[in-house]
Order: sequence, then structure tokens, then C-alpha cells
Amino acid sequence: MSILIKNVQLDGEIVDILMEGNLIKKIGRNLSEIAAQIINGQNKAILPGLVNSHTHAAMTLLRGYADDLSLKQWLKEKIWPAEARLTKEDIYWGSKLACLEMIKSGTTCFCDMYWEPQATIKAVEEMGLRAFIGLLLIDFDQRGQKKFVAEQYEKLKSNLNQRITLTLGPHSIYTVNQENLLWAKRFASENNLLIQMHLSETQEEVDSCFKQHRLRPVEYLANFDFLGPEIIFAHAIWLNEKEIELLAKTGSSVVYNPTSNMKLASGILAYQRLKNAGVNILLGTDGVSSNNNLDLFEEMKFAALLQKVTQFDPTILPVKECFNLATFNASQTLKLPLGKIQEGNLADLILIDIKQPELVPNYNSLSNLIYAGGGSCVDTVICDGQVLMENRIVKGEEEIIEKCQEISQKL
Amino acid sequence: MSILIKNVQLDGEIVDILMEGNLIKKIGRNLSEIAAQIINGQNKAILPGLVNSHTHAAMTLLRGYADDLSLKQWLKEKIWPAEARLTKEDIYWGSKLACLEMIKSGTTCFCDMYWEPQATIKAVEEMGLRAFIGLLLIDFDQRGQKKFVAEQYEKLKSNLNQRITLTLGPHSIYTVNQENLLWAKRFASENNLLIQMHLSETQEEVDSCFKQHRLRPVEYLANFDFLGPEIIFAHAIWLNEKEIELLAKTGSSVVYNPTSNMKLASGILAYQRLKNAGVNILLGTDGVSSNNNLDLFEEMKFAALLQKVTQFDPTILPVKECFNLATFNASQTLKLPLGKIQEGNLADLILIDIKQPELVPNYNSLSNLIYAGGGSCVDTVICDGQVLMENRIVKGEEEIIEKCQEISQKL
Repeated sequence: MSILIKNVQLDGEIVDILMEGNLIKKIGRNLSEIAAQIINGQNKAILPGLVNSHTHAAMTLLRGYADDLSLKQWLKEKIWPAEARLTKEDIYWGSKLACLEMIKSGTTCFCDMYWEPQATIKAVEEMGLRAFIGLLLIDFDQRGQKKFVAEQYEKLKSNLNQRITLTLGPHSIYTVNQENLLWAKRFASENNLLIQMHLSETQEEVDSCFKQHRLRPVEYLANFDFLGPEIIFAHAIWLNEKEIELLAKTGSSVVYNPTSNMKLASGILAYQRLKNAGVNILLGTDGVSSNNNLDLFEEMKFAALLQKVTQFDPTILPVKECFNLATFNASQTLKLPLGKIQEGNLADLILIDIKQPELVPNYNSLSNLIYAGGGSCVDTVICDGQVLMENRIVKGEEEIIEKCQEISQKL
Repeated sequence: MSILIKNVQLDGEIVDILMEGNLIKKIGRNLSEIAAQIINGQNKAILPGLVNSHTHAAMTLLRGYADDLSLKQWLKEKIWPAEARLTKEDIYWGSKLACLEMIKSGTTCFCDMYWEPQATIKAVEEMGLRAFIGLLLIDFDQRGQKKFVAEQYEKLKSNLNQRITLTLGPHSIYTVNQENLLWAKRFASENNLLIQMHLSETQEEVDSCFKQHRLRPVEYLANFDFLGPEIIFAHAIWLNEKEIELLAKTGSSVVYNPTSNMKLASGILAYQRLKNAGVNILLGTDGVSSNNNLDLFEEMKFAALLQKVTQFDPTILPVKECFNLATFNASQTLKLPLGKIQEGNLADLILIDIKQPELVPNYNSLSNLIYAGGGSCVDTVICDGQVLMENRIVKGEEEIIEKCQEISQKL
């Protein structure tokens, strides 16, 4: 299958872009190649699809279910009891809603961590996105035991769609003990897997780790060689200089989740210090119940503005750098040729309708999208060489919305 | 002219709403009244139109013109030189674009302050919004002299559309001297006008005031009785306890502009302290060049989340309170019957399309709109009993976009 996008704006120039299979084949002016599908790119700008590097897709089902509460009350009284009532079928539909929302706001790839990964995988396969699915390890739950996870991995890996990559998801240092973390590290190494994990999201987590181990979380993990370029830490807010150095030295990655960190009052990522140390920083929305959406353009605005005001420096995290968090930086950690529109890269692309009032005038289209526009300006989405949305229409949207409304009545 | 909205969701109940002239006449189930226009409210929620209490509409023309710069460089090297090139005609079109953007994101009323107010007034008259137009006083500009402003006021006040209210806009304490501020206070009192003014946006402003007068800005203003319920201060970030008390005691209002304050790294409003002291707090986007949009739903999200994370308290500024900043609180300061859907109030209303994926499920529709949705979920806008948008279509949209693109080429 081939697609030719005609007369689209790429970095301010008008070009044609030819895709063949799941790759970008050729970029140039007035391409004469014949393609199975032609897309008119007039009044559209093209960008790489965005990568959401930390989320829990199925939590769309808990959007607005509990807001403005203390973290403890939010988690223990509201989120955990509601999650306990979610069936595999619910998780499937919740993940479909997440995929729908991601497509509609320009995300083509995401890193997920949740129970019942096969339900999320089925949703992703049907919706056409690219995803890194974390198999959750948690000591206190039967489904999170290493034996169960190893079996799950073997079962899932055969017959996996090329857009989907399995990873391990040890939840955190306070829910997975050292023995099990070491197992995860070894299992990931043997099977060449990435590891997604929450880290130092709250000060309490750090205090409790220090009390137990006389070490701060990153030191604790470094002590048994857990760190490394295959590790993606979500949040990583409460770090001292030594911990930042350890992350940098080992090539571990960090996912910045500004909206969730602000909404739950968890804290503020030491972005500039991490960046200066050389840590690769990615961007995530976290689950919808603490955001409450999956719009990565909005997330970029929060990412930049939170740093500017708290560092008293408006020059920090300018738009191009901010955009890289959700594109190029992610491609480095995930080791995939995406995040840039160039020949040979994966055909994960989005088209922006530049005739929206909030994108006018157009001095700087990236600034417009991040600071003024947002996901609602995305018109067309292509992932792995397949059109997932055109003119903002996604197949099956109404059914997904109805099903999720139904499930929410039950909760 | 009468309008009947059938079967619309109001606070979770399905009702009909009848408008006659520019007022809400009747709210109830299955109203049998005959109306000139019927609007189908199915799958829609109704809310009061939002009030943007501090902006500079025509600055849409400078959207994305200068980002990620220090305040000084931004203002002196980029914004002021560009503004000097804006003609009256440019300001008219820039204001039209602002009105278009406000309509599309659910704002029905705004407080403005800019040069060439007659150009903005013409735009507002044509676009159908409600506005409080500040006549700008600035010592160093001929157009900002009191004589000129008094003449302008006399000229404009006759023949003014009922949706438009004139106010005075002394720019700030560092651009308007005490004599001229006193004149403004007197002139406002004689003519029963509100006063809009910037206050304590940066620490530098406070330091320089203290150096000059041995008083902090609010103390300085209190010293010659400038404060009062007719005064609306934008920003008001750098306040000590005594200043907060003075604002509360005199009934002065404060406009919170979180996005602009974050983007320019100006500082963080002492929201909780102001609220506890009893100061009425409103919400504004500021001009587009420091935001970079006019979406008050997004502004509410920034408003709430910035307070939560910097106060380390996720319970601060919950959704209902946040919504009040842009509705009920504004109605108190502006002394207009708006900000609530009730019989007798002005017919300034918006309808939300609740079938958007980011508004599903619907446990709490206000939470959904503020935390998950945003201006793009607004489907229909009515102001002063007139439909300004239906199905997201606003008359004349394309011409406005083209004109503003043209003007931007010149800048």
C-alpha cells in the first residue's frame, strides 16, 4: 500500500511525501510517483506523530471520577476500588477510547502499563497505533508475580502485531522487592526488552525508601545495577544531584509528566538539571484520571510553562526542545526510526489544519501548535503507513463512546 | 427575537430554556412556548458564557511572534516595535480574530485594554460579543493623555451598542503618574466607570516602586485613595500580607492570568491568601502574545494546576471554584446578571458537545470540560440573545483569517 501526500507544509516548505508500506519513501517537490491513495495536503502542515512515553490507557474509564483530592484519598478511596471492578472487557474498551483520543490529538505511539495487557494489545491492534506494552509486576497481586508475567510474555510474544512491542513494567520500588526487580532486569536483558517503571513520584516515596534502605531510590537501584539504557523511569521528580548523575551515567531515561504532577501536587521535575547532566527526557500524560486527557500538545505547553515560572526564566524549554520531548527524544530511547519526517523513517505522521483561528497568524507553526493550538487542530493521522484519521473522522468512534459510557454507569 | 433550546443538560438535568430579547425568560421541562428559533439541545450541556477579565484582543496579530524570550527582550525588541507598526485597520482585524477565537472557545464577554479602542469596539459590535473596553492612559504617548482620553470617552459613549461598556485603562503605576491616576479615579467616579489596570506583575515593578516612593505598589495607591470596588487589577502577583488586606478592605478585584504569568516567568498569584482575605478573583488570558490563545477553559486548567503544585496541595482550587473565576466572580465585579443560567439573567450561554471522546465518561461534566476538554468542545454560542455560533460555524470566519494572515506578512 502506498500513500502520496501532495503539497503539504514541511518546515515552512511545500513538498510531496510518498509512503510505501510502513515507511517514508521519498520527500520532494512535485513527485510524479503513482500511489494507491492521494491525500491533499493544501492548508496543512505535516509533523511526525507524537509519542506518549507514559500512560495507563484504560484509565480513560476513570476520567473525572475523582478530582481535587489528596493523593492518598484519591488512590485508596477512589481509584483502587474502582479499578478492582474493571473487567478485561472494560479494559479493552477503555484502551480503545484512549487510542481514539490519542489519534484525535496526534499521538501515534505510546508506552503503557496496566493490568490485562492482552486487552490493551487487542485495542491497539484494532485502532492501528504503535505501542510499547508494559507487563505489570507487583508483589502483592497474583497477576503481578514473575512466574505469571514470564508465562504471559511467552504467550503474547508469538503472534504479535509489528506495531506492538512488549516491555516489562515493574510498578515501583515500593511495590516490587529487590529480588523481583533483579529478576525483571535479568529477564529484560535475556529477551532484549525495555523496562518501564515509576520512580520518585512523591517525597514520601523517597523518605520511605531512605528509612528502609538508608539510600535514596536511585542509589538503592544503582546498588544492585538496576539502572541502564533499557530503563524508562516515569516521574523521577525527587532526585538529588548524585541521583541525577547516576541516571545520566547509566543512560537511563526519564519521562516528564507535568500535568499529572501538577494535578496531584506531586512536585516539579528538575528538568534543567537533568538535561544539563545529559539525561534523555521524554514526555507523558500519565493516566487520564490524573490529567485528565491524552493531548500531548497540551502536555508540551504545561511542560514548558511549568519550568519557566518555577525557574523564573522564560527562556527555558523553548518550543523546539519541547517538541523533541515527544518526538526525537522518544525515538532515541525506544530505538525506533520515528520522531522526524525523513526518508527511511516510519510512516507515523500527522497533518495539521492550519486554518484554525488559534493558529493564525503563522509566524512559527510549532509555537502555534504548542502554545496556542493543541490536539484539536490535528486533521489527519497516519501510523505505520495506514490512515487512522482523515478530516478528524475515526472509524468506530461512536461505538467506543457508547460502550465506555455504559461501562461508566456500572462504576 | 426569541430562542427555545430543547432538551439540554443543565447541571445533570434535561430542561428547555426560553430566551426573549437578551434575557433568559424561562427554564423548565417541556416548555410549550412558541419561539422564533428552536435549537436542539440533545447531547449538549449548557453553561453560562465565560468572561475573560483581562486581555488585549488585537494582540492576536502577534501570536507566536516572539516566544521563549526574557520579558525585557520580548517587550522592547519584539512586541513594542511590532505594535508601533499596527494601524487602526490592523487593530480592527486583530480584534475580529480575537472575537472569533473567543466565540469558538465559549467566551461571551471580555475586558480589553488597547490602543484605538474604536477599532476594537467596531469589531465587537460586528462579532456580537459583550465587552468592557478600557480607554488606555499612558503618560508617554499622546493618545494616552487625559485630555485625549476624556474627549475620546465623550465621542464614544454616544451611540454605543448595549453590549459594550467603556472603562478607563490607566496602564500601570510605572507608566501613569500619581496626578494622572487621581484624574482617572475622579473621572471614573463622575462617570460611573470601572477602571482596569496592570499591577505588580513583576518583582522589578515592586522594587522600582519601593525605590521611588518608599512604598510597595498597593500601599502607594492606597495612600491617595485609588483603591476601591470599581478597580480591576490584572496580575497582582507580588503582594505582601498588608497589600492583600488593603485590596480586600477596599473591595478591589484581582484578575489571575496563570498562563501569561507562567510563560513570561512573572510569578505565581497568591491565590489562596487572596481568597482567604476575601478578595474577588477573576480570570484572564492576557494578550495572545504571552499565552498564546484565548481559551478560558484551558486557562482554568492552568489556574488550578499551578496552584496545586506550588502549594503542594491537590485540593486547592477545585473545578467549581475554578469555573466561578470566569463566571460568577466576574459578574460580581462587572455588576452584570451573567455567569449563571437562571431566569432573568442575560442570555449569554454556551452549548457543549458532550459526545467528544475527551468528555467520556461523564462523571463530572465541569471536571471534564476544565481538565479534559477545552474550548474546542463548544458547539453553540449565544450572546445577548443572539446566536453567534452553531455547529462550530461562525459567519465570516474565513475572511478574518485571510485578513490577519495578510497583516502578519507586513509585520
